[in-house]
Amino acid sequence: MKITLAQLDYTVGDIDGNVEKIITTANNSKGSSLVVFSELAVCGCPPLGLITYDSFVEKCEKALDTITQRCPEVPILVGCPIRNDSKDGGKPFNAAVFMFQNQRKIFRKNQLTIEEMPYFEAGDDDEMLKIGCMKVAVTIGSDLQNRSNDEFLIENRMDSLMKNEPDIIINIAADIFDYQRAERRREELRKTVLKFERPLFFVNQVGANCDLIFDGGSAVFGYEGYVVNSLPFFKEGVKDIDLQCLISLKKEDEQQIPSKVELMHDALVLGISDFFKKQGFKRAVLGLSGGLDSALVMALTAEAIGNENVTAVLMPSQFSTDHSVNDAKQLAEKLGSPYYIVPIKNAFDTFSDMLKPVFQDRPFDVTEENLQARCRGILVMAVSNKFGNILLNTSNKSEASVGYGTLYGDLCGSLSVIGDVYKTEAYEISRYINRDEEIIPWHTIEKAPSAELRPDQKDTDSLPDYSILDAILYQYNECAKDIEDIVNQGFDRNIVERVVKMVNRNDFKRKQLAPVLGVSPRPFAKRLMPIVKK
Amino acid sequence: MKITLAQLDYTVGDIDGNVEKIITTANNSKGSSLVVFSELAVCGCPPLGLITYDSFVEKCEKALDTITQRCPEVPILVGCPIRNDSKDGGKPFNAAVFMFQNQRKIFRKNQLTIEEMPYFEAGDDDEMLKIGCMKVAVTIGSDLQNRSNDEFLIENRMDSLMKNEPDIIINIAADIFDYQRAERRREELRKTVLKFERPLFFVNQVGANCDLIFDGGSAVFGYEGYVVNSLPFFKEGVKDIDLQCLISLKKEDEQQIPSKVELMHDALVLGISDFFKKQGFKRAVLGLSGGLDSALVMALTAEAIGNENVTAVLMPSQFSTDHSVNDAKQLAEKLGSPYYIVPIKNAFDTFSDMLKPVFQDRPFDVTEENLQARCRGILVMAVSNKFGNILLNTSNKSEASVGYGTLYGDLCGSLSVIGDVYKTEAYEISRYINRDEEIIPWHTIEKAPSAELRPDQKDTDSLPDYSILDAILYQYNECAKDIEDIVNQGFDRNIVERVVKMVNRNDFKRKQLAPVLGVSPRPFAKRLMPIVKK
Repeated sequence: MKITLAQLDYTVGDIDGNVEKIITTANNSKGSSLVVFSELAVCGCPPLGLITYDSFVEKCEKALDTITQRCPEVPILVGCPIRNDSKDGGKPFNAAVFMFQNQRKIFRKNQLTIEEMPYFEAGDDDEMLKIGCMKVAVTIGSDLQNRSNDEFLIENRMDSLMKNEPDIIINIAADIFDYQRAERRREELRKTVLKFERPLFFVNQVGANCDLIFDGGSAVFGYEGYVVNSLPFFKEGVKDIDLQCLISLKKEDEQQIPSKVELMHDALVLGISDFFKKQGFKRAVLGLSGGLDSALVMALTAEAIGNENVTAVLMPSQFSTDHSVNDAKQLAEKLGSPYYIVPIKNAFDTFSDMLKPVFQDRPFDVTEENLQARCRGILVMAVSNKFGNILLNTSNKSEASVGYGTLYGDLCGSLSVIGDVYKTEAYEISRYINRDEEIIPWHTIEKAPSAELRPDQKDTDSLPDYSILDAILYQYNECAKDIEDIVNQGFDRNIVERVVKMVNRNDFKRKQLAPVLGVSPRPFAKRLMPIVKK
Repeated sequence: MKITLAQLDYTVGDIDGNVEKIITTANNSKGSSLVVFSELAVCGCPPLGLITYDSFVEKCEKALDTITQRCPEVPILVGCPIRNDSKDGGKPFNAAVFMFQNQRKIFRKNQLTIEEMPYFEAGDDDEMLKIGCMKVAVTIGSDLQNRSNDEFLIENRMDSLMKNEPDIIINIAADIFDYQRAERRREELRKTVLKFERPLFFVNQVGANCDLIFDGGSAVFGYEGYVVNSLPFFKEGVKDIDLQCLISLKKEDEQQIPSKVELMHDALVLGISDFFKKQGFKRAVLGLSGGLDSALVMALTAEAIGNENVTAVLMPSQFSTDHSVNDAKQLAEKLGSPYYIVPIKNAFDTFSDMLKPVFQDRPFDVTEENLQARCRGILVMAVSNKFGNILLNTSNKSEASVGYGTLYGDLCGSLSVIGDVYKTEAYEISRYINRDEEIIPWHTIEKAPSAELRPDQKDTDSLPDYSILDAILYQYNECAKDIEDIVNQGFDRNIVERVVKMVNRNDFKRKQLAPVLGVSPRPFAKRLMPIVKK
């Protein structure tokens, strides 16, 4: 007797495409006792407001018929939204649907996440799925999340399902990646297994849908809470699990979870490639300054969609150093990617002349710094429009936090690749990319960072050292610590207050930023803050 | 015996300022049996993620002590977040706090909205507030929302509070405006009064916090469900209500709710003025094209912050008609607002020259249209930066729906004033503004709309007539109707399909738009849609 884990990459709203994948995978797994697909596999995840259109949910349900018709020999468990037939017409359910020949059985998600609540109704099906003589408790994603605030006490959906004495637990999920998640998830699921003394089959999806990345890492936990078998991170995979193999391994034999830098790197590459593939885009363009951030985005993008598909635009100003242009050229040439050099001086001078009657003799200030960044924004957007290349944004999370960036200038772009990556992490990932050979010029990695918008400008003129800045930002953004808490950790009060003030002042900029590939436990997309406030 | 309704305008996070207002108002109402302030008055609404910082909630609670100390003679009921003292440390409560001398009594909100759930825990206090020998059921905002899907059956928090036999109901609220809300709210509250046979004191807040507008309209419903007394819409107000006056009026004697166009107009003016006031901004700037949208935004802003505080920048291109420039000048001169004329030709030509080696002989296309819009964006942002004026965005909801607008061009701005106003509604509001005299040039209102980015361009070259477009958009956006439903209403299938496709394709642009003053029942901020989808 074997159960098949199918860890696939689905596209939101592409019901036909998702169903085609499901059917092919199922029919390749004939002989399996159950082929398990992930949460909301039929519609892709997260469907968000698409769920509010009745015809969308209907179409998902019809797709289930197609699957049954075309997979007559394979028992399937698949995630799909299901209409709510109650007479007062509530919201649909997020369900796991078992289908085999004429049988169909629906298991509705019970513990909805806050994000799902506007769209789905909570269900409450206590019945077991029977596979042969085996009773399966079917759970969906956050059904297994701990309801207790006490982390040592596990309370979840299984508490009520246990009364029907299941033999095993299945959890189909769409579990969102962050660089701590794989580790945390493994420990959470392990605790569930140990409390309820049942082996657990966890089937996650993989792939990125805009800012959300699903990391895969589907796994089977044996009776003693250890992972006895698993699928890779960030890749599709299908695996048959023989039920004989649930005898425990030792903890040391568990599949290793990759390091933080490797997880972040792989997540970003997948995030970029799915953003392009799922929207039918082929080519990217970006402004390449010679600095670290744009170099990192260029290298990641080249890996994701192919060197030849990334165009770099070098746009030096009067304040750009020679080494910047050389470093940028070196990277583009190393990758063999097309690049253009378009100095911005003429555009900057023209605007300055045009604005002279308005500005009269007012001195050079942040207006002119922004003007340079915006001339670059216009140029690179023009290249994007003319050739149909998608502009990638290259700001990092340290900058996004403190508002170090120009709206409609360097903050342009359809996708922010490293907007959830602090500068210090950007260095780590760059070094990781160079682990075997120099791809990003070492000079780019080692020189002092500068926006080069004034003579001899350095980031440290107006910001603390990134090692300090990022540590404070981590405490404030990721850990929701207050100023007092952070100062008590030993940071300088003046710096902490200044940094926190900058973060709070710049929600208006982040509001207008492109979607950001989420890789941290708390991307700004989750930090919903009032923009107008005191 | 009298109860005082205090309908004030609070700023999010400005605990000191809000408390000062509350104290002054309370002390002006000595002799009242109870002064009632609205939901979350102490911290402003919505506090969103501020609530996740413990020190913020603590500071709110400390503010309650200040109020008691400084208002020793006045019984007060005020909305304030309250810490959760349960030993496993849950989320705070959204509470109504009664304070008088040494007494303090806390009523926790029970029926949280979806938006509040990430931040607040639901409470369950069934006790009554006693004022003299009168028992008051204290409810907060959505506590009185109907839980039943059957609109004829009222089920809400009062069902459980009735067992303690209250004499009256108080509802303190932060009820968000839309142009249908005042009417709908009155009917909903009336039904509650009729079901539970108790008079109801509804105290709303007024004012705008970024995109959310609170319309006030606090009201007292007598035993027979009619409004016997009320406060104005869109203005602060304080009123003593004598409990002798709860004998019913007839429905015909109820305060009239203003017309849709008046509500929208007043909401937008308040939205603009609070956006400036609460952030300490004084002056605005906008690009004035001679078309309807920018003219309307200019007129609304002049009304909100003063004619002299709005700067117009006229940026004609080679495709601009003379009448556009004249119409724009006429409006600025009528208002006596400062304006500059900066033709964009030189900037456009410079960029075209700079890009020639990259573009070679490729023909004029949407790239050059966008380039013009972006030259304007740069110019007006430069004026904004140099003089510290806030740039207002002038796109309307019809354009925002179908993506008719250039990112980093005419979509620039810190606040979208009419991004929730369809073009046909923009005409209505413009006519309303001209009801007594010509402020917006009649020629601007009457001519055919055009983006003037190509020779002789008209909006109707690429879009259906606005009367048809807006009707389809209303069905799709506001009513969540499917293509089939809309076609069945008599619209042309090809047009409907094209419009729906455009709406779905442009979520990426709306993601990067400034916050939009919400005036419709379904602004795009509430339509959370996946950006990457098929």
